[in-house]
Amino acid sequence: MRIDELLKTRMEECTNSRVQQAMEYSLLAGGKRIRPTLLYETVKGYGLNEACADEFACALEMIHTYSLIHDDLPAMDNDDLRRGRPTCHKQFDEATAILAGDGLLTYAFKTASLSHQNLSHVVTCMKILADMAGPDGMVLGQCLDMQEEAHVTDWQALRTVHHFKTGCLLSAPLMIGAVLADQDEHTVEQWKETGMTLGLAFQVQDDWMDVRETPEQLGKSNSDARNEKVTSVTLLGEEKARALMNDLYEESIARIERTGGFESSSMVSYIKQIQNRTK
Amino acid sequence: MRIDELLKTRMEECTNSRVQQAMEYSLLAGGKRIRPTLLYETVKGYGLNEACADEFACALEMIHTYSLIHDDLPAMDNDDLRRGRPTCHKQFDEATAILAGDGLLTYAFKTASLSHQNLSHVVTCMKILADMAGPDGMVLGQCLDMQEEAHVTDWQALRTVHHFKTGCLLSAPLMIGAVLADQDEHTVEQWKETGMTLGLAFQVQDDWMDVRETPEQLGKSNSDARNEKVTSVTLLGEEKARALMNDLYEESIARIERTGGFESSSMVSYIKQIQNRTK
Repeated sequence: MRIDELLKTRMEECTNSRVQQAMEYSLLAGGKRIRPTLLYETVKGYGLNEACADEFACALEMIHTYSLIHDDLPAMDNDDLRRGRPTCHKQFDEATAILAGDGLLTYAFKTASLSHQNLSHVVTCMKILADMAGPDGMVLGQCLDMQEEAHVTDWQALRTVHHFKTGCLLSAPLMIGAVLADQDEHTVEQWKETGMTLGLAFQVQDDWMDVRETPEQLGKSNSDARNEKVTSVTLLGEEKARALMNDLYEESIARIERTGGFESSSMVSYIKQIQNRTK
Repeated sequence: MRIDELLKTRMEECTNSRVQQAMEYSLLAGGKRIRPTLLYETVKGYGLNEACADEFACALEMIHTYSLIHDDLPAMDNDDLRRGRPTCHKQFDEATAILAGDGLLTYAFKTASLSHQNLSHVVTCMKILADMAGPDGMVLGQCLDMQEEAHVTDWQALRTVHHFKTGCLLSAPLMIGAVLADQDEHTVEQWKETGMTLGLAFQVQDDWMDVRETPEQLGKSNSDARNEKVTSVTLLGEEKARALMNDLYEESIARIERTGGFESSSMVSYIKQIQNRTK
């Protein structure tokens, strides 16, 4: 995959050290690369060459990976297995895992700053990246998730957690793609909403798969069950959760198909592929 | 101080949450604000109004504060006291402290992206920020510091740790100030070297004060002694360390005074103030 090659090159350009090795260990562990792919699909749908989005594709995957490393820490979800391998703090140590996360987050912005696109677009995209990943976005979601573990009791409250924790970083690639394709603010906002719907679909699917698959099949430990977490499945039941997931995917696809000036077929077929994933 | 007001406003604009409260707790605890002040002194020395550097001044202090929060964590230096108050993970909890650091680091880039300066300068300054704070800069220094705790045995090796751990984030404000003042690459590199010299002076001073002052005087716990850390004082002795510190401060000042087109008196008097600090 294009993104894997790019990430590998980026990591080779980073000073070799224990923290660099830990960053590389987690970053090149072969994730699904959903966020970079969504970004590439967005610029392609607008008729641009995917190369224009390379730096932001890398930045998104670095931010996603940092969030996984920190989420897995003992003080957070305390997970041992990720992408079929020991989590970063298990493979290295806790201090190195904290630093690897910090390093990837910072390196994401460094990488984004290397983009050769229109300067105004670059700054706007970096702002979107920080906004969606930070304390008004993903970090807020992670905070709500930790805090509300004990007292999320209804679907609406859980939906809010997912909105920030998962939705924001799935909206970011769609928004960034639209900015790179020189779309107006209103269109960028529309893509944000589409990303939120897609993020919710994705998270409900994750919850649903967590109860149906073994850790070996998923390649990660099922900490939700161990931590007695409230999920869409525990709140709605397996049947309803599955129906909701399909509704949300359909809604996302419908939103994409009615986006003006956007050739949607390739992105839609990619989203159907995600919908039918087994891990 | 100007920077305190700006940071307060920035935190008010952030979504209220437990993580936002933890970010604010650590950010508004009244540090020395050395990095923002160095940035303001740089732009002023070039004849610019300090307002042009506000967003980057905030970003630098946010990055500095995030690094302190993560350094203080149990898996790192395990410190209880910072700026005269319980450390972030003591006041809140470990998970919240990890997220508060992540939040501040991300919010730093968000804040930087709001700058209204020349777009090319903004992107260059964000690149410097990420470079100096990331896995080729401060994060590398922190990694070397953790890793080499057991086997740094000579001054040269320790100097390398300080170069990355302290020097990089003291060079960043000088470099960013020079970019905002439209200086050429060579001049920006000169400022980087000046920052490295100043960072080393500052760190040796820190080591020296750590053995002379009580935690109550310093407002932070003396984890170096507890962790049996090798410092410039344990390697060189108190007398030599103090002489070295004064030499390094003098060298920094001499470098600043011979910078072309730069009115140095205000910055030099600020640096002498740092040199004479007691905590």
